[in-house]
Amino acid sequence: MSATEATANVGVVGLAVMGSNLARNLASRDGNTVAIYNRSRGRTDALVAEHPEAGFVPATTVAEFAASLQRPRTAIIMVKAGAPTDAVIDELVAVFEPGDIIVDGGNAQFADTIRRERAVRETGIDFVGCGISGSEEGALNGPSLMPGGSVQSYETLGPLLTSIAAVAEGEPCVTHVGTDGAGHFVKMVHNGIEYADMQLIAEAYDLIRHGTGRTPAEIAEVFAEWNRGELESYLIEITAEVLRQVDTDTGLPLVDVVLDRAGAKGTGAWTVQTALDLGVPVSGIAEAVFARSVSSRPEQRAAARTLPGPDGFTVDDPEAFVEDVRRSLYASKIIAYSQGFDAIVAGAEHYGWDIRKGDIAAIWRGGCIIRAQFLGRITEAYADDPALVSLLTAPYFATAVADAQDSWRRVVVAATTGGVPAPAFSSSLAYYDSLRAERLPAALVQGQRDFFGAHTYGRIDRPGTFHTRWSGDRSEERVDGA
Amino acid sequence: MSATEATANVGVVGLAVMGSNLARNLASRDGNTVAIYNRSRGRTDALVAEHPEAGFVPATTVAEFAASLQRPRTAIIMVKAGAPTDAVIDELVAVFEPGDIIVDGGNAQFADTIRRERAVRETGIDFVGCGISGSEEGALNGPSLMPGGSVQSYETLGPLLTSIAAVAEGEPCVTHVGTDGAGHFVKMVHNGIEYADMQLIAEAYDLIRHGTGRTPAEIAEVFAEWNRGELESYLIEITAEVLRQVDTDTGLPLVDVVLDRAGAKGTGAWTVQTALDLGVPVSGIAEAVFARSVSSRPEQRAAARTLPGPDGFTVDDPEAFVEDVRRSLYASKIIAYSQGFDAIVAGAEHYGWDIRKGDIAAIWRGGCIIRAQFLGRITEAYADDPALVSLLTAPYFATAVADAQDSWRRVVVAATTGGVPAPAFSSSLAYYDSLRAERLPAALVQGQRDFFGAHTYGRIDRPGTFHTRWSGDRSEERVDGA
Repeated sequence: MSATEATANVGVVGLAVMGSNLARNLASRDGNTVAIYNRSRGRTDALVAEHPEAGFVPATTVAEFAASLQRPRTAIIMVKAGAPTDAVIDELVAVFEPGDIIVDGGNAQFADTIRRERAVRETGIDFVGCGISGSEEGALNGPSLMPGGSVQSYETLGPLLTSIAAVAEGEPCVTHVGTDGAGHFVKMVHNGIEYADMQLIAEAYDLIRHGTGRTPAEIAEVFAEWNRGELESYLIEITAEVLRQVDTDTGLPLVDVVLDRAGAKGTGAWTVQTALDLGVPVSGIAEAVFARSVSSRPEQRAAARTLPGPDGFTVDDPEAFVEDVRRSLYASKIIAYSQGFDAIVAGAEHYGWDIRKGDIAAIWRGGCIIRAQFLGRITEAYADDPALVSLLTAPYFATAVADAQDSWRRVVVAATTGGVPAPAFSSSLAYYDSLRAERLPAALVQGQRDFFGAHTYGRIDRPGTFHTRWSGDRSEERVDGA
Repeated sequence: MSATEATANVGVVGLAVMGSNLARNLASRDGNTVAIYNRSRGRTDALVAEHPEAGFVPATTVAEFAASLQRPRTAIIMVKAGAPTDAVIDELVAVFEPGDIIVDGGNAQFADTIRRERAVRETGIDFVGCGISGSEEGALNGPSLMPGGSVQSYETLGPLLTSIAAVAEGEPCVTHVGTDGAGHFVKMVHNGIEYADMQLIAEAYDLIRHGTGRTPAEIAEVFAEWNRGELESYLIEITAEVLRQVDTDTGLPLVDVVLDRAGAKGTGAWTVQTALDLGVPVSGIAEAVFARSVSSRPEQRAAARTLPGPDGFTVDDPEAFVEDVRRSLYASKIIAYSQGFDAIVAGAEHYGWDIRKGDIAAIWRGGCIIRAQFLGRITEAYADDPALVSLLTAPYFATAVADAQDSWRRVVVAATTGGVPAPAFSSSLAYYDSLRAERLPAALVQGQRDFFGAHTYGRIDRPGTFHTRWSGDRSEERVDGA
C-alpha cells in the first residue's frame, strides 16, 4: 500500500469530515487519482477501507505523500485554522519543490492567508488560500470554491477545482477570486452575509408567529411557498424543513423544544471586525452576530425577563401581514448583500485584489449555504454596471426595495409597537433611510467633535477645512493652510 | 538650562497639545517640578518660553531627561499610538533603572499595552498604560485618568495622578483600574460609549427638527432645558452650544453649513471589534460607528438619494413629542452604558482584571467627554449589587426604561413611518426587547445550523447536546456522549 511512485494528480491532507468528503469528491471525478495523508494514521486507514471505490493512494508520512504526487504537486490542506494549518504547511514546504502548489481549504483568517502566501512564495512553491463553502454535503457533492493565490497557480488548479465544484445553471461554482488572501476574504464575507440571512429569516418567522398565531408547521408552509418565488434559496428551503419537524419525545414542534441559544464560530464577527477596519457599514451583519450573542447570555436574559414592555401583537389580516413580512425580508436581504458587497469592494481596493463582483455572486449560486436564485440578479447588476457604487441602487434592487417600502415600514412598526425584537429588520431599514437621507445629523456630530476636540469640519458651500474657536470668540478659521 | 541634577519629580515626553497641556497641569500643582523632553527641540524651547511660570526642566536628550528626574523616575509619554510609542519606550528603557515608572498616556490599543507591560517588566521597570480623557482642555485643567499597570506602581503614581485629575463632587477622577492593559481597555470602552451618546443626541435633534419643524436655535433651547434634568451632561451642554451657533458668512445655523460627514479616529471601532471577540453585544455603539461611516460615503449617498421613501413627518403635539424624544434618549443611553459595562465585565473576566465597575463610573463624572450626572446612578447600582448581571436590571435603570416605554416606541414608530433614520434609537429598543424576550427565534437559527452543519442544539427540557439526523431518518441523537 505504500506510495513508491508518483501516481496521484492531487492530494488531501487532513481527513476529518470535510477533508474526507473533499477527497471522495475528487476521487469520484474522471481522471483524478487522490493521495491522502492524515497525522494520525487511523483515519487514513479507515477512509481507504470504507471507500475502496475511491482508489485512494494512502501515505503514512508526509515524505511518502509527496512522493506519491505527480509534479507539479498539488496538495489541499483540510485541517483546523491557526497553528495546525501552519504546522502542515511547514511539513509540506519541507518536502515539496518549486512549482508545486499548496492549497489551504480550511477556514483561515484572510490576513493569515496573506502572511502565509508571502512566506511560502519565497520557496518557489505556490500557496493558495481557498474558501470552501457548502459544509459536509457540499464538500462531498460539489462545494462553492473561492481560490485566491497567484494567477499561474490557477492554471493548474482551475481544472481540478472545476471538476469538483457545484454547478449552477450549467456553470461551475468556482473562479479565481484574486491574489493571496482574496479567496478567504470573500469566503469570510459570504459567511457574514449568511449570518444576516439566517437572522432575517428567524425574525420573519417570529413576527409571523406573533402576529398571526400560526403554528411552526403552518409557517413551514409559508416558507415552502416563498421558496417558489423571488426568495427561493437553500436557507428558505431548510427553514421550512426545520419548522416542519416534530419532536418525537414531546410531540411539540422541534423549534419549541430547541434551546433558543444560537452558537457562532467566529466568521460573522470577523466580517464585522474587518468591515470596521475598512470603514464599511455592515449593520445588518453586525445585528445578526449580536442577536446570537444576546441569545447566548442566559443570566442576563433571566434577569431581564421581568422588564416591562408590550407582550406581542395580533394583526387583523394575516394574509396581508405575511406578504408584508415577505417583502420586508426581501428588502432587508438586499441590504445585507449590498453591505456585504461593499465590504468586498473595500477589501479589494485596500488589498489590491481585482475581484469581479458579478463572478462572486455567480459562484455562490450553487454549493454554498447562501445559494439563491437572487444571486443571478447581483451578477446581472454588475454586468450592467461594473462600477456600480451600491448594489442597492441597481435598477432591479432599487425597484425591489421601492415595492417593499410600505410593507417594510408596517412590519417594523408592528414589531416596535408589539415589543417583538426585530433588530436586523429595523437596522436594515434605518440603514436604507440613512443612505437616502438628503442631510444626516452627522453634521451635529462633527460640530460636537470640533467643539471638544478641534477635529475640524468641512462646509457645504466651499472647499477647505474649518474650525470654530469655541473656547475663544467663536469665530471661524480655515485650518487647511489654503 | 541643561539638567545636570535630579530636580524633577515627574517628566513628560512628547509635547504636542495633549503633552504640553498635561505638563502644564502637572507644573501648576504644588510640589511638582516637571521635566520635559520632545524629539524635536523646537517644541521644548517654545513651551519653556511661553510658560516661564511652569518652571519646566527642559532636556535635549533622553539621557539628560533621565538625569533630571528624581528616583524612582516617573515619565509620562504623550506621543502617537503605535510605532512612535514603542520607539520612546525603547529609548527610556535604555536610560531608566529598575523601580522607575514609564506611563503611556496616549491612545494605545489595550492589547499593545499588555504586550508592552510584559516586555518592560522584564527590565524591572514598571510600565503603566493610562487612559486619559478630556481632550486638550481636560489635559490642562483636569482629565479623567484611567491607569492600569501594577498595584505597586500606583503607590508612587496615585498621588501624582490624583493631583492633576478632574474633581467631581469632591472626588478625584482617577482610580487604579486594574493591571497591565486594564486602563487603556476601559478608556477604549469610554470612547465607544461616547460614540453612542453622540449619535443618540444627533438622532434626537434630527427627529425633533423633522417632527416639529423647530430651528436649530430653538432646539438648542430644548437641549439647554434637558441639561437641567436627568440628562445633564457635557455632551448635552455642548450640543446646545453647537446648535446655537450662527455662521457669520451666511447667517445660517452653523449646523446647516457643516458638511454632514462625521469623522472617526478608531476607538469606537476598536470597542466593537473587542466586544465581538468577547461575545458581548454592543449594538448601540456599533450602530453609532456605522452611522459615521455611512455619512462618510458621499458617492453612495449621492447615488442613493433618489431611492424612494417617505419624506419626514410632522407631529400634532410638539411639546409631547419633545418629551417623548427626551425619554427615548435617556432609555437608549441607558442601553449604551449597559452594553459598555458588559464589555468591561467581559474584558475583566477574560484578562483577569479586578475592575470595580462603580469606581469606573465615578471617575467618568468629571474631566471626560461623557461626564454626566447619570454616572452617579451607575456607581450606586454597583454599590447596591456588585454582582449585578446587567445595568439595565438595576432598580433605578429598570424604572427609567419602564417609564420611557411608550415614548420610546412612539418615537421609533414615527422615525420608521417618516423615513427618518434613527439607527441607534431603533437598535437600542430592539436590544431591550431581545433581552427581555421569553423566547428568541435563535432556536430556529440553531435548528438551521444543525441542519446544514450538524452544529447540534440544547433542549429546553433536559441537559445534553443533540442532533437531528436531517439527511437520514430525522430521528434525534444525543451527541455529548452522556
